[in-house]
Amino acid sequence: MKIALAQLNYHIGNFEANTHKIIDAIAQARQQGANLVVFAELSVCGYPPRDLLELDSFMEQCEVAAQQIAEASKGIACIVGLPTRNPEIKGKDLYNSAYFMEDGKIKAQINKALLPNYDVFDEYRYFEPSVSTSCIDFKGHKIALTICEDLWNVNDNPLYVSEPMEQLSKEQPDLMINIAASPFAYNHDEERLQVLGDNCRKYQLPLFYVNQIGAQTEIIFDGGSLVFNEKGEVLDELPYFSEAIRYYEFEGKLVKGLQVQNLERQTDIEQIHQALILGIRDYFQKSGFSKAILGLSGGIDSAVVCTLAAEALGSENVMAVLMPSEYSTDHSIKDAMDLIQNLGCKHEIIPIKSAAKTFDEMLKPVFKDLPFNIAEENIQSRSRAIVVMAMSNKFGYILLNTSNKSECAVGYGTLYGDMAGAISVLGDVYKTQVFQLAGYINREKEIIPINSIVKPPSAELRPGQKDSDSLPEYDLLDQILHQYIELKKGPDVIIAQGFDEALVRKTIKMVNAAEFKRYQTPPILRVSPKAFGMGRRMPIVGKY
Amino acid sequence: MKIALAQLNYHIGNFEANTHKIIDAIAQARQQGANLVVFAELSVCGYPPRDLLELDSFMEQCEVAAQQIAEASKGIACIVGLPTRNPEIKGKDLYNSAYFMEDGKIKAQINKALLPNYDVFDEYRYFEPSVSTSCIDFKGHKIALTICEDLWNVNDNPLYVSEPMEQLSKEQPDLMINIAASPFAYNHDEERLQVLGDNCRKYQLPLFYVNQIGAQTEIIFDGGSLVFNEKGEVLDELPYFSEAIRYYEFEGKLVKGLQVQNLERQTDIEQIHQALILGIRDYFQKSGFSKAILGLSGGIDSAVVCTLAAEALGSENVMAVLMPSEYSTDHSIKDAMDLIQNLGCKHEIIPIKSAAKTFDEMLKPVFKDLPFNIAEENIQSRSRAIVVMAMSNKFGYILLNTSNKSECAVGYGTLYGDMAGAISVLGDVYKTQVFQLAGYINREKEIIPINSIVKPPSAELRPGQKDSDSLPEYDLLDQILHQYIELKKGPDVIIAQGFDEALVRKTIKMVNAAEFKRYQTPPILRVSPKAFGMGRRMPIVGKY
Repeated sequence: MKIALAQLNYHIGNFEANTHKIIDAIAQARQQGANLVVFAELSVCGYPPRDLLELDSFMEQCEVAAQQIAEASKGIACIVGLPTRNPEIKGKDLYNSAYFMEDGKIKAQINKALLPNYDVFDEYRYFEPSVSTSCIDFKGHKIALTICEDLWNVNDNPLYVSEPMEQLSKEQPDLMINIAASPFAYNHDEERLQVLGDNCRKYQLPLFYVNQIGAQTEIIFDGGSLVFNEKGEVLDELPYFSEAIRYYEFEGKLVKGLQVQNLERQTDIEQIHQALILGIRDYFQKSGFSKAILGLSGGIDSAVVCTLAAEALGSENVMAVLMPSEYSTDHSIKDAMDLIQNLGCKHEIIPIKSAAKTFDEMLKPVFKDLPFNIAEENIQSRSRAIVVMAMSNKFGYILLNTSNKSECAVGYGTLYGDMAGAISVLGDVYKTQVFQLAGYINREKEIIPINSIVKPPSAELRPGQKDSDSLPEYDLLDQILHQYIELKKGPDVIIAQGFDEALVRKTIKMVNAAEFKRYQTPPILRVSPKAFGMGRRMPIVGKY
Repeated sequence: MKIALAQLNYHIGNFEANTHKIIDAIAQARQQGANLVVFAELSVCGYPPRDLLELDSFMEQCEVAAQQIAEASKGIACIVGLPTRNPEIKGKDLYNSAYFMEDGKIKAQINKALLPNYDVFDEYRYFEPSVSTSCIDFKGHKIALTICEDLWNVNDNPLYVSEPMEQLSKEQPDLMINIAASPFAYNHDEERLQVLGDNCRKYQLPLFYVNQIGAQTEIIFDGGSLVFNEKGEVLDELPYFSEAIRYYEFEGKLVKGLQVQNLERQTDIEQIHQALILGIRDYFQKSGFSKAILGLSGGIDSAVVCTLAAEALGSENVMAVLMPSEYSTDHSIKDAMDLIQNLGCKHEIIPIKSAAKTFDEMLKPVFKDLPFNIAEENIQSRSRAIVVMAMSNKFGYILLNTSNKSECAVGYGTLYGDMAGAISVLGDVYKTQVFQLAGYINREKEIIPINSIVKPPSAELRPGQKDSDSLPEYDLLDQILHQYIELKKGPDVIIAQGFDEALVRKTIKMVNAAEFKRYQTPPILRVSPKAFGMGRRMPIVGKY
């Protein structure tokens, strides 16, 4: 039989667009002589639909869409993912399901057994875990169909007490198909190859794995769908970060005509670069916006964001606003202007000195002669937010946030000031990684001015200020943050690795104390295994 | 035997304070001749600890605290709640447990079977559900001990496929004890009486139910612990919103010397009033802050917040800032000053006209002669945020947000302007309920000026502006919002109830379109069964 893998970009709740896209792919596959076309997990409604699943009207739209897709599957079979209602009274009201449709009819339904409920995942919030399953017979083949996490229980410390493939393998299937919504993180591609390959080796079966691509606010799906032989060797890999449909001949237990691939892995930074561009592009496209605005300081963070936005949206759709204060250095304007020239994006220069002065005067009766401190620093940062948000309100620009993960982590940013924005581009990228990204962007020619890269990072909110006045050097800071945030190590364990005790305790204290700020930051494009936002849920009023 | 119910206020992650409080209560109970003292769910670490549970160092602190409490239980028994490690390799790494401690030792462990994972609850994120349990023998009595949700599966559409009391009842227990962390919502007390009473009737057993009190950021525990007889009749109810320890003589299957109570229920508004005061007080006390700041407009929302804050923190700890713009009406200042006089709190008057003018001038080269619109309106709101945040930064005040739920719902508020704050006091209180709250506050004398209550609501950001220019009348709006948000009804169902179709569709569209704003709002004190924040998780970039 001829199997088509359709790796597509869906839009949450946009049934019209998703259904149209799925039906188009079915028509194309039929034309190519395919017998079966496979779509991703929750392809009908998009992933993650979150609490939309609790609205009856949403579930009704899923059912209507499924009927339309079934009708379009005349003369072919397809597998789509969607939420369905649990007919039993006991248990959660929904299942995370796959429909097997054949020749115009829904022939089989498989429900997901292992429901991820960690990091950004909340599936047990909505779905009842399936306890029984069986293979699907199609054209003389027995298909073991599972949904994403169902194959992810094959490690040393399994998260679930059962494994649906154990049950399916008793029926002696000929192949596995897994439909997924597996989000990007810079280390996830390797993990995926390992886990999926382990399944092939354990059950001695080939595997067709279909992921989706596209960003859904903070969560970015990277595609990279895979075909394995029964030894867990990769026979084909679909592209990352773009849509694709590919066809395979499957006979006996073999995928025909393909060699074992030696995959060349992209570096973390190359992957992050592509993920962020897709994240920006889909945020705008799926929201119906086209124009971005950001404050351009002459520093490296806003330079990188501006460059990524220009690539994602076109430089003509990017408005960079230079807002020097009285503490801004001369080179800041020059560095920012150099970048604007390199990119060809729009710009405005709006100094904020008069705003800072006005607030100083307004507050003089209250502040009297108290010394300049963080209050006056923040007034500058917040005045900039007022300027860019006013332009956003006037012209329909969407504000991009330019804070990096190191700053977000330790709270080195001004709430309602530089922490503002509709979406945070670098909030999951440590400062040391921002430098790497800048280097990667400049790999062929100088786009980001070298001066923005080599000068010491500074918020320029008081005379001669440098980040290193308040923070440890980023090389050191980022290592400690990675231990605490990504690896969840406590202070004692980190100190035992040789880091300075006072520095570790101070860093962790800063991270914990900034929880109230992070609660109000924009959604952050997730590129690491542990991003701030939905995937990391900490108490605010706690003592720790 | 003599049983003590200890309804206490815990602090997440504050092991020192929680352990101290528990050990104090044990000593007090011992002195009163009690044999057993019962504390609430996760009393050792506070509820909800969220992702702190993923840190090894946090679990180690739980274990140390449990040992200290066990040692303090010499000559007495106690039940405490805490997370414990799952010794099995398969499944989640933790259990949500109760320790039964007796005479200095941990004698038994019960693990929670039914893990709430809806609304604000995320328990399956951390815990493995228990599949087996057994009764505890103590002083000739067989105790069926369960944890909170374990008793909540007795309705027509049960959320779980099993019920731990079915298993326990086979051992013919003499009584049930349930330890809980059951958060406040204005309708939750009645639901609780029904569900717990149903358990008593179903299993023909008396029940001792211990809840906790106290606010943990947005979640407010209201106490109201209960003692039931085997007919499900209430024999005693502990106070709401305050700590208490009470003692009961239990012999045979009977609680001695108590009559069946006819509970007098407080009105929703009385309950909300107390909940909000506790919410403010605990936010400040547990964060180590004492002084609040807010913008006082002369309108009803900020007047109610100011009054609640004065009651929670003392009027000497509340700074009300009047920030008239050129569109503010004369009576706004007068109404605000009347309130300040009634409450005796501090105030400053800082007009924002010069800030608005400065930004107009700064933006003139960009805005040119484009007409005044939402951009200029928001500049005023954001200038106010700069003023109060600067005072916060300079003097250590914590900003209280004054937006109500109707505004939050439809996005009628300025991000980084009036939507700023450390905690939102009224974000779960519809405008119509704010009026009721004001009426309740004024029940004995005029505290909130009548003029603030009777004048038409206005943001005063342009000449003659009224809320009703942009929004439906609140009476109607709040009904539609309640249908959509609390009851999760889709547009067709709401329209079928007789609401105007265009109005319903417009309202729902406004709610959905404001998702990106709500993502960045402060945590909201939760008083309804469906508050914005952690309990309502909607996609931002979706089409619906």
